[in-house]
Amino acid sequence: MTALPDKSDTLCPVARSQAVIGDRWAVLILRELFMGNRRFDSLLAQSQATPQMLSSRLKRLEADGMIERKHYMTKPPRYEYELTEKGRAFHPVLLALREWGETWHKSPHEDVAVRYTHLTCGKDAGIGTVCQSCGEPLRREDLKAEFSPSYAQERAARRDAVKNGKSA
Amino acid sequence: MTALPDKSDTLCPVARSQAVIGDRWAVLILRELFMGNRRFDSLLAQSQATPQMLSSRLKRLEADGMIERKHYMTKPPRYEYELTEKGRAFHPVLLALREWGETWHKSPHEDVAVRYTHLTCGKDAGIGTVCQSCGEPLRREDLKAEFSPSYAQERAARRDAVKNGKSA
Repeated sequence: MTALPDKSDTLCPVARSQAVIGDRWAVLILRELFMGNRRFDSLLAQSQATPQMLSSRLKRLEADGMIERKHYMTKPPRYEYELTEKGRAFHPVLLALREWGETWHKSPHEDVAVRYTHLTCGKDAGIGTVCQSCGEPLRREDLKAEFSPSYAQERAARRDAVKNGKSA
Repeated sequence: MTALPDKSDTLCPVARSQAVIGDRWAVLILRELFMGNRRFDSLLAQSQATPQMLSSRLKRLEADGMIERKHYMTKPPRYEYELTEKGRAFHPVLLALREWGETWHKSPHEDVAVRYTHLTCGKDAGIGTVCQSCGEPLRREDLKAEFSPSYAQERAARRDAVKNGKSA
């Protein structure tokens, strides 16, 4: 009874999803890939995982068909990671997590991390899974993302800390 | 760099959410509470966690303000667990996980786990986060859930296995 339910052990789609992504690191890695952050070193900086942790999670996500590894340099070999169709289909989960996090894990003085403009209506999409301006369900391809100034600063500090060989 | 980002370390709402629920057991426990399964023994059967694991996750969810513990019997003291407002606000994340799981982790011969009727329009809500029949975003209070026959059987087997002291 100690093992986590295997994917084939249960019909429950939530349990099966969790068997693939039920890991905080995996979700943070997916978040980064959705932001277009595709290379090992920058994934390392922004996820704050150890190299071993990041490496094992990337392998697992690849084995589960969530991401693909592609060469961007051959000598020496260097890879970047891309979301597959299955990986991209995870976006609504991140949007729902974002809404819950922005609503329940922020003090009034804190800014949002990312602002989305809903390209369909041209207005601020808000923090929900449907557009606060036009009411349509939000789809990734209709969103333009922009970091808030404080979140941009936080990310820059993490990048610099890794460059200088320190923890952020 | 090995520690998971603390809630106060980052503005990212996804990272903060994961700090609370980024654990497969926690998500399975929340799934059960949403189904109205509120007592330790039946949570144990359906989550397939060990008693120690379940107990620690329930304490953590309580400390994080996701659930409340209430007496349902005083001699001997017995408790049941209820979702708080913050816990109930997690429902859209489960719906999104369900959609992704039903879409990407099922073979064609497998049934859905739960069928939802959208009370607003009276029709089958489908497996998405908006109603497949009327297109409205799905809210928990507008959904009537029913286990598919195979999932009902799976749950009954788990309940019986725990009753008989065996792992399901």
